[in-house]
Amino acid sequence: MGRPTVSNLLKDGHTVRVFNRTVEKARPLADEGAILVERPEEVVEPGGILMTCLANDQALEGLFEANPGLLERLGPESVHVSMSTIAPETARRLTQGHAEHGTEYVAAPVMGRPEAVAERAQLYLVAGPTAAVGRVGPILESIGRRVFGFGEEPAMANVAKLAMNFLIASATEAMSEAFTLAKKSGLDPADLYGLFAETLFACPIYRNYGRLILDGNYREPSFRLALGLKDMALVAQHALETQVPMPLASLLRDRYLRAMAHGRGEWDWIGIAAEVEADAGL
Amino acid sequence: MGRPTVSNLLKDGHTVRVFNRTVEKARPLADEGAILVERPEEVVEPGGILMTCLANDQALEGLFEANPGLLERLGPESVHVSMSTIAPETARRLTQGHAEHGTEYVAAPVMGRPEAVAERAQLYLVAGPTAAVGRVGPILESIGRRVFGFGEEPAMANVAKLAMNFLIASATEAMSEAFTLAKKSGLDPADLYGLFAETLFACPIYRNYGRLILDGNYREPSFRLALGLKDMALVAQHALETQVPMPLASLLRDRYLRAMAHGRGEWDWIGIAAEVEADAGL
Amino acid sequence: MGRPTVSNLLKDGHTVRVFNRTVEKARPLADEGAILVERPEEVVEPGGILMTCLANDQALEGLFEANPGLLERLGPESVHVSMSTIAPETARRLTQGHAEHGTEYVAAPVMGRPEAVAERAQLYLVAGPTAAVGRVGPILESIGRRVFGFGEEPAMANVAKLAMNFLIASATEAMSEAFTLAKKSGLDPADLYGLFAETLFACPIYRNYGRLILDGNYREPSFRLALGLKDMALVAQHALETQVPMPLASLLRDRYLRAMAHGRGEWDWIGIAAEVEADAGL
Amino acid sequence: MGRPTVSNLLKDGHTVRVFNRTVEKARPLADEGAILVERPEEVVEPGGILMTCLANDQALEGLFEANPGLLERLGPESVHVSMSTIAPETARRLTQGHAEHGTEYVAAPVMGRPEAVAERAQLYLVAGPTAAVGRVGPILESIGRRVFGFGEEPAMANVAKLAMNFLIASATEAMSEAFTLAKKSGLDPADLYGLFAETLFACPIYRNYGRLILDGNYREPSFRLALGLKDMALVAQHALETQVPMPLASLLRDRYLRAMAHGRGEWDWIGIAAEVEADAGL
Repeated sequence: MGRPTVSNLLKDGHTVRVFNRTVEKARPLADEGAILVERPEEVVEPGGILMTCLANDQALEGLFEANPGLLERLGPESVHVSMSTIAPETARRLTQGHAEHGTEYVAAPVMGRPEAVAERAQLYLVAGPTAAVGRVGPILESIGRRVFGFGEEPAMANVAKLAMNFLIASATEAMSEAFTLAKKSGLDPADLYGLFAETLFACPIYRNYGRLILDGNYREPSFRLALGLKDMALVAQHALETQVPMPLASLLRDRYLRAMAHGRGEWDWIGIAAEVEADAGL
Repeated sequence: MGRPTVSNLLKDGHTVRVFNRTVEKARPLADEGAILVERPEEVVEPGGILMTCLANDQALEGLFEANPGLLERLGPESVHVSMSTIAPETARRLTQGHAEHGTEYVAAPVMGRPEAVAERAQLYLVAGPTAAVGRVGPILESIGRRVFGFGEEPAMANVAKLAMNFLIASATEAMSEAFTLAKKSGLDPADLYGLFAETLFACPIYRNYGRLILDGNYREPSFRLALGLKDMALVAQHALETQVPMPLASLLRDRYLRAMAHGRGEWDWIGIAAEVEADAGL
Repeated sequence: MGRPTVSNLLKDGHTVRVFNRTVEKARPLADEGAILVERPEEVVEPGGILMTCLANDQALEGLFEANPGLLERLGPESVHVSMSTIAPETARRLTQGHAEHGTEYVAAPVMGRPEAVAERAQLYLVAGPTAAVGRVGPILESIGRRVFGFGEEPAMANVAKLAMNFLIASATEAMSEAFTLAKKSGLDPADLYGLFAETLFACPIYRNYGRLILDGNYREPSFRLALGLKDMALVAQHALETQVPMPLASLLRDRYLRAMAHGRGEWDWIGIAAEVEADAGL
Repeated sequence: MGRPTVSNLLKDGHTVRVFNRTVEKARPLADEGAILVERPEEVVEPGGILMTCLANDQALEGLFEANPGLLERLGPESVHVSMSTIAPETARRLTQGHAEHGTEYVAAPVMGRPEAVAERAQLYLVAGPTAAVGRVGPILESIGRRVFGFGEEPAMANVAKLAMNFLIASATEAMSEAFTLAKKSGLDPADLYGLFAETLFACPIYRNYGRLILDGNYREPSFRLALGLKDMALVAQHALETQVPMPLASLLRDRYLRAMAHGRGEWDWIGIAAEVEADAGL
């Protein structure tokens, strides 16, 4: 996700310092004008904007534990725009830790696959202190399609992101079960798809994901199944902490877990459809 | 559902004979030009078209058991357009029973609430012998918005209808769980709605049902919760017969069953949202 | 089940008339003293006792539909001891139908595998009119280990039987999940078995079924998996009719359904353990 | 749990130093011969045996983080007998951390309510290095009824404990659903209890817990429902880490979560039976 984001920031005329543990990965961005640095601390300057987009909670929290100079150097009047999909609880801890150094934490998880980011078609779900959001909002609006605001508490953007991924996974499970029922009944699932995708469910998730499931096109991941499990586990954990029984979320967590146990972690996350079919002996 | 259907048939210039056990209910249709009859057999004439729209499998099969003269009188070259949401297995039995009398059975379950039927906005999912479908298709296309065909085997239209209702109930459960998670997390569910209904889920079910759930508007039924349970039980039964494990369908069946046990059978079927909230202590 | 039952009745000195569609199957019983008859009606005599042990509801109800002479011949003062595991609703219908002919219907479903029946080790769950139960009770007490009474309404014995099979299937699922967790954690499941089977769960189901699951001994059916699915479907159906949400029963129904879809209908019903393991990639 | 454990250790002639944050709570033990100390470090002596029985993972790990002197003072040849029910992963971390100071970590989670501990009727599930287990085993055998060994890896005893609590919770759910089905069917649940508790399920959990559920005796906690949720969450988390889909564990986790959301955290953990009944409108 990082590379197309930086490309577009550069095209918009921003100065961007980039750190990547594997320097080679960042090299193409240098050709586009990015300044490559060798240590995380060098990415930031006092009062500047730090953007991160890491794989999970551990990676993000680990970054600040391993590089205590990062927040010290950012200092007062700085902003950290955190684009990762992480637990609301992690966002709360980070918000507090940042506040101690004067840095404002803005949660800005992204909705959109890497291809979408390259085309400025992604959405940003943003929450954080008004002033900080006011400062970074226009930047995000330029590199993305649209910014949705969720108030001043950063963790709320993470709740919204988890809820969205939960809705997407739910639709995947529902379509997979419906297609499998159709198949074993002797009904062409493409006819079922034609019905729902053109009428009551004529929207991107049902049209696009429905088409991919119909085609059995699971093995070229835009979003890896292992990350799908990570997100469903985050939903289940957050449901535990807020005391919200979510039986559908539990069902999805077990579904992704099963797919992982069957070695499908590198498939696309809609690959749970293959599990639904296998359950029925197909 | 029957009354607006007949009204529009009459407006289209068709001759319609109407039977209703409670004559008073059919009286307004007489004013519009319908011919009221006193016994079911009188509704039909040899080689004619019979249309039925009954509450469930028992009512429909009971009609023919209680009135053996019905199929006898219809005889060869006749068509029965069956609009009820019933089990595919029931449709198969009826198809066979009709064939013995020379009547072609056409399944044509309706998607649409009564208000939609009045406005010719409903969909018909149609399956049956080609000639029979060719004869009744234009009539249905005129009184509805659109006809979707599912081949020559009538039961397939019933499979498609059950699959659609399953998708709708799944979306209801998913939105309900997501809204409840939002509420208990401190996130305004209206903000979550704004996000999904304007982007990845910008389609009628998520926009309209999502709005109703958000407003807690469950008590004026367009489609009664008791009928929702009936349909989820039909899905579970059909899944059993075709050997398709559908854990989400089982979850929904139990959800509607719980709502029934709590006396909510006369609510609208999206009223399961109240159960999801109650689970979380809201 | 029928053969060892009849053998023991003969040993107890009863006169037994036997009907089996495949005469050859009943031949050995003739050698033991049974009177083989050629048509179901001939099995009974006025005021006598009819015993049936059929595979399912359809077979039992079908018997009386196909042989109207059966109840006519039994007539007043007769008793039908029905040992099948069927739906309480079916028992109710049969009770009514029998009453019209003066026959008392006594439900007496059996707990015990065929080997147990041969050794008079089975249990009878009995419910029916007091006088009728008083007449047949001593016979059942002699050919079985023990008779448990469930009052005067026959269907209650069927409820008890379904509840028992539900408890057994629940214990099977629980042990299977626990063993699989142990295996993938590096804990020898035999050690776990030693713990629970000798302490809190030192009872036949956990000791015997636990041992069979531990040994992966699923393929020699004492009770076929297909019948396990039948019973779980009966539980789910009865739960629907009494409006009792039973999520564990739904889980089990889907579990057995999955095993059936995978071609395991002829395994023993504890074979769902193989499904639990396969879910975890073992 | 701590107090009866120490009482019995003192009766057995052991020297016991006791630390409790609230000194008053430990006072009665001083009367029985225990030496009360003011800081955790003072509980231990070099090469001695430390016993802990804390509420959860955080409390146990927090003890060592807050008191670094504890392990330093214990030093080589010492043993820590850890009786808490915690995650296997936590046990692994503690085992490593202890090893760095030369202390052998022995997991010894207890099965048994406090009353049982007072009567030396509890079980110990023990795993750890052979020498250390050899040293503490006889002590535990004296103060408890029996010691079950699970090899040299401490975490395995925690896996066994979680599996046992999972089996108990599963039996609770199964009996609750069966009793509720009986009630709404018109069958006296006491009759059902009489059947299973005297035959196939004649073992402590079904007899004792079954009786408590039957009596609706949920409000005097021997084991608090909040702890039941903690344990089911540990099971679900461990299932995630070992990639074992456990749908029954997920169902139980949601069940306890629901009970918590309904304010039942201080009930006994069998109180989920009240939730099952409420689901059915009882």
